[in-house]
Amino acid sequence: MDIQYNSWLPKFKNPFGAVTENSSVEFNIKIDSKEYIKSVALVVRKETHRIETSEYMMEHSDVNQYKYHYQTDKGSGLYWYYFKITAYNEYGQEFCLYYGNSKNGGEGYQYTNEGAIIWYQLTCFETEDWAPEWYRDAIFYQIFPDRFYNGNAQKVINSPKKNTFIYGTEEDLPRYVKDENGDIDRWDFYGGNLKGIKAKIPYLKELGVTALYLNPIFEANSNHRYDTNNFFKIDPVLGTNEEFKDLVATLHDEGMHLILDGVFSHVGRNSQYFNYSGVHDELGAYQSPHSKYYNWFTFLNYPDEYEAWWGIMDLPQINKHDPSYQTFIYGPTNSVLSYWEDYKIDGWRLDVVDELPNDFIKGIRERMNDMSDQVLIGEVWEDASNKVAYGERKEYTSYSDLHGVMNYPLRDQILDLVNERKPIDEITLAMMQLKENYPTHFYQSLLNNIGTHDTKRILTECEGSFKKVALAIALLFMMPGVPCLYYGDEVGLAGQADPDNRRFFPWLNQNKVLTQVCQNWIVTRKSHDSLSKGDCQFMFNSDRSLFAIYRAVYHEESLCIFNFTDFEQEYILENWQSYGLNGVEVIEKMRRFDIPRRWISSHDSLFLVKQRVRN
Amino acid sequence: MDIQYNSWLPKFKNPFGAVTENSSVEFNIKIDSKEYIKSVALVVRKETHRIETSEYMMEHSDVNQYKYHYQTDKGSGLYWYYFKITAYNEYGQEFCLYYGNSKNGGEGYQYTNEGAIIWYQLTCFETEDWAPEWYRDAIFYQIFPDRFYNGNAQKVINSPKKNTFIYGTEEDLPRYVKDENGDIDRWDFYGGNLKGIKAKIPYLKELGVTALYLNPIFEANSNHRYDTNNFFKIDPVLGTNEEFKDLVATLHDEGMHLILDGVFSHVGRNSQYFNYSGVHDELGAYQSPHSKYYNWFTFLNYPDEYEAWWGIMDLPQINKHDPSYQTFIYGPTNSVLSYWEDYKIDGWRLDVVDELPNDFIKGIRERMNDMSDQVLIGEVWEDASNKVAYGERKEYTSYSDLHGVMNYPLRDQILDLVNERKPIDEITLAMMQLKENYPTHFYQSLLNNIGTHDTKRILTECEGSFKKVALAIALLFMMPGVPCLYYGDEVGLAGQADPDNRRFFPWLNQNKVLTQVCQNWIVTRKSHDSLSKGDCQFMFNSDRSLFAIYRAVYHEESLCIFNFTDFEQEYILENWQSYGLNGVEVIEKMRRFDIPRRWISSHDSLFLVKQRVRN
Repeated sequence: MDIQYNSWLPKFKNPFGAVTENSSVEFNIKIDSKEYIKSVALVVRKETHRIETSEYMMEHSDVNQYKYHYQTDKGSGLYWYYFKITAYNEYGQEFCLYYGNSKNGGEGYQYTNEGAIIWYQLTCFETEDWAPEWYRDAIFYQIFPDRFYNGNAQKVINSPKKNTFIYGTEEDLPRYVKDENGDIDRWDFYGGNLKGIKAKIPYLKELGVTALYLNPIFEANSNHRYDTNNFFKIDPVLGTNEEFKDLVATLHDEGMHLILDGVFSHVGRNSQYFNYSGVHDELGAYQSPHSKYYNWFTFLNYPDEYEAWWGIMDLPQINKHDPSYQTFIYGPTNSVLSYWEDYKIDGWRLDVVDELPNDFIKGIRERMNDMSDQVLIGEVWEDASNKVAYGERKEYTSYSDLHGVMNYPLRDQILDLVNERKPIDEITLAMMQLKENYPTHFYQSLLNNIGTHDTKRILTECEGSFKKVALAIALLFMMPGVPCLYYGDEVGLAGQADPDNRRFFPWLNQNKVLTQVCQNWIVTRKSHDSLSKGDCQFMFNSDRSLFAIYRAVYHEESLCIFNFTDFEQEYILENWQSYGLNGVEVIEKMRRFDIPRRWISSHDSLFLVKQRVRN
Repeated sequence: MDIQYNSWLPKFKNPFGAVTENSSVEFNIKIDSKEYIKSVALVVRKETHRIETSEYMMEHSDVNQYKYHYQTDKGSGLYWYYFKITAYNEYGQEFCLYYGNSKNGGEGYQYTNEGAIIWYQLTCFETEDWAPEWYRDAIFYQIFPDRFYNGNAQKVINSPKKNTFIYGTEEDLPRYVKDENGDIDRWDFYGGNLKGIKAKIPYLKELGVTALYLNPIFEANSNHRYDTNNFFKIDPVLGTNEEFKDLVATLHDEGMHLILDGVFSHVGRNSQYFNYSGVHDELGAYQSPHSKYYNWFTFLNYPDEYEAWWGIMDLPQINKHDPSYQTFIYGPTNSVLSYWEDYKIDGWRLDVVDELPNDFIKGIRERMNDMSDQVLIGEVWEDASNKVAYGERKEYTSYSDLHGVMNYPLRDQILDLVNERKPIDEITLAMMQLKENYPTHFYQSLLNNIGTHDTKRILTECEGSFKKVALAIALLFMMPGVPCLYYGDEVGLAGQADPDNRRFFPWLNQNKVLTQVCQNWIVTRKSHDSLSKGDCQFMFNSDRSLFAIYRAVYHEESLCIFNFTDFEQEYILENWQSYGLNGVEVIEKMRRFDIPRRWISSHDSLFLVKQRVRN
């Protein structure tokens, strides 16, 4: 039996990708069979309060063709499906065959064992939930605040903390100072601060950056500040609340935006809420069950055994179901969200968002909806459309929770491409899967990166090859979603995993070639709507030696062809293909760029734009 | 056979202690014997170019008394002696019995086995070699420069070194930052500097300090700077050469003095002389055998195997016999000594002086003799009169090499006293031994301490008892030699061994009670010649519950009685004794202070002075 289905092609599934509630989705499947087909069913499972699986008989619409118009009337969330073919064999016996997902979507497999089937995913979202326009147009820049710039005269450090170390020079490489148990016992600081960020706004503007994402800046013990001690106070090493207000105002005056890192899943052991060391005046949960914060935490054996993030006792876990904590974080007044709204911040990146219950995230988002034009991004490392955490299906893409997530899967794909770690077609499958699973508004709002404070640096991933870094930057700027540069990547800063990926910005030793690459791409992106707003297709040539990204809006098309190999490669129009287009469509799109048969250099890319003139 | 001899009493040996060349020393020994004494000999060994032992027949001067006038005409150095008694036993057989040293000098033992004898030491010195008067009158204060005071506005650190750590606050406790092999891989600094010392001159003056001993200040990698990189340059973290000149000039204007730490036995691996990392322009010994410094070092397998101090490869050992190095250190011009003489320093403390050959020390001293009033002190941890290092008998006390040494044995004695670790009489024996072995000019020039950068702090040694620290301070100031306080001890700074003994001076948390104790003793010492110049005797009462130090100059006597016990103790004139005086003399001396029978509180001392009116 020859069964043809491809979730990425409109002749099989229409529309492409995620749909809203009460949409009609047309499924077509083609079956060439010697056997007599008794029936073809679309089997759909919807997770609601209970899991409900239904079979829908498909209509035999044409020779070998079966069709069904499915209505997504079970509400938003994930729908899962496969096809069930009932037929008679040559002996007249009835048997069933199934067609399900292979792995990535697109073409699937025939299954004989129903239990082994991988279901196709159909993402259904409540309503289109576009991120604020400033965000979708933004060029983001992530700053690890201790490591960017010290704005004080003579590089004086603001209020160094007790029992910490300051690096002798900004050129020193980061290292942890650990005790004999391997626990960090003195945190290490360089002394970058908010005044420093403000002082470097001209630099950022020249680079073309329009928005900043800052790693945590609230008072904490560590240099990364994911161990919040006080949600309402800028860490004194970074500066004052007033300086922060000034920074935001200055950014806004320059037409720039800023989002903060919201660390709401756990707090620092030395926070005023837990107050492990008793340094704060107010009663903390550790000190007394009568503390007003007692219910925020889960004690297994009071007070020394408590739930902590990943078992790190420095980071007591919060019970996010506690109403007083919810009010504290996102209540209408005097909450963390309302407090920093007064400072005019432009949004939040939610740290370890998988740890936050759906309702908690919704609470945050609802509060933010009252605020002007704030964006909400989540830290998710995988495909965010189908994550499960703590037995709960996350609703990032099905409800209007997050505008987007950090796009770590894209980083993997980019690294696989530039380092030729996997075949181009295989990487393209993974790209298509994200495109299919995410609603367009979400896909276009992913915060894309080629490195963060939690990964090795791009230059190090590229083994020091500036040409490869330039290609990675090109891919970052060609992709749908919002590009975010990690401070220092644009000047060739290297770095292995944490802590080496958090070196101080090398102000005295900048690779200006990479800076120029970034500047050029930023200008290109800003001046071409197809890059910031366009639909996309991924293409590759028949011997997988060239890769291309095609972007299009109504009035403009752009194309970037990449050669990741160590050799010159010849561009020939005829041999291109794509998973999202049929062969004719691919050639037709590429032809419009009028590219002559030509050679593309090793580790190089070719960017082309075409204005669309329509009658 | 009853033999009586005591090297500390003039009726047995006269004069007391060390003598000059060509002195006459009268030995008397008393022997009560049933056996017939055939002869009594004084056996003397002198180490010259060869070891020469001679026997001198003693004259039977009185009943049971034997006497000999020995001439120290073999030159200066150590003479060793014992007594050999030849007698006939009851069967008419000749036998020999020996009387030698027990351990400390003073009374000895009878020996039957000549090979087992501990010889008595007689120190013979070339000539009296008094330290400069300013030194003998000085109240010293030792500063570990990184840890005293930062004189910069906003506590900015002068030129922090690459790959070092600066403590977050001055209150942080010191710790080493080591790699997985246990080697220090980032040096830790607080940023104390020369400007800071200058700024604190008023503090030091108020305390009563008149001279400073600074731990090394030349450019180096570490915070202790015993790994010299450049002998002619103040470490930039501490300041500039000009700032140092200014500091010395300011101290002199205030009537104060300053000595430096001379680290001449080894250098830093990263010095310009060795140039391990090749950071210096000039060819270092590590880089080429053609380096002008090549002969300073001893390579076992060029270039990576070389002799290093205590095997610490960071500290290549210098071959001090190399003439070019000798010229470099103490040549008449352009040498380290002549260079810093131009800065008007007042002397040197020679680090690990045991590592320096006698001739090298003499070379230093001869150069210093050309200089105005400089003092030369050596770092020796034991009795310096009889040390042997590298097969060579050190000549610290026999020639005019060092003016004195750091008196670590006294520190042990003081700790033993205040902590009651040993019986008072046993400690007194050790005190007497030093007094006997050292020439008076040397004994009076010892640099006494109750703690340094190489020991636990006095407060910690006293387990936090301020009363015991006060007693230790009293002992320090009562003793002959020059008292030297270790920075911070006067304000109750605690500290275990290195690095904890090098905490930053607690300017915001000073124990003023101890400061007052120091101030009082400094005033007392300065206003009483008996303390700064006087002869001394150590006394204790019959039940060893009270201890006393007696000091006397021509016109003044002083006495301090100590109760180290946990109980009140009664002072009674009649029951005092001393190893250096006979019973009548002790009582006669104490009587002059007119002390009524009285109670002395636990952990307290009683100081008395008596002007001597002579007819």
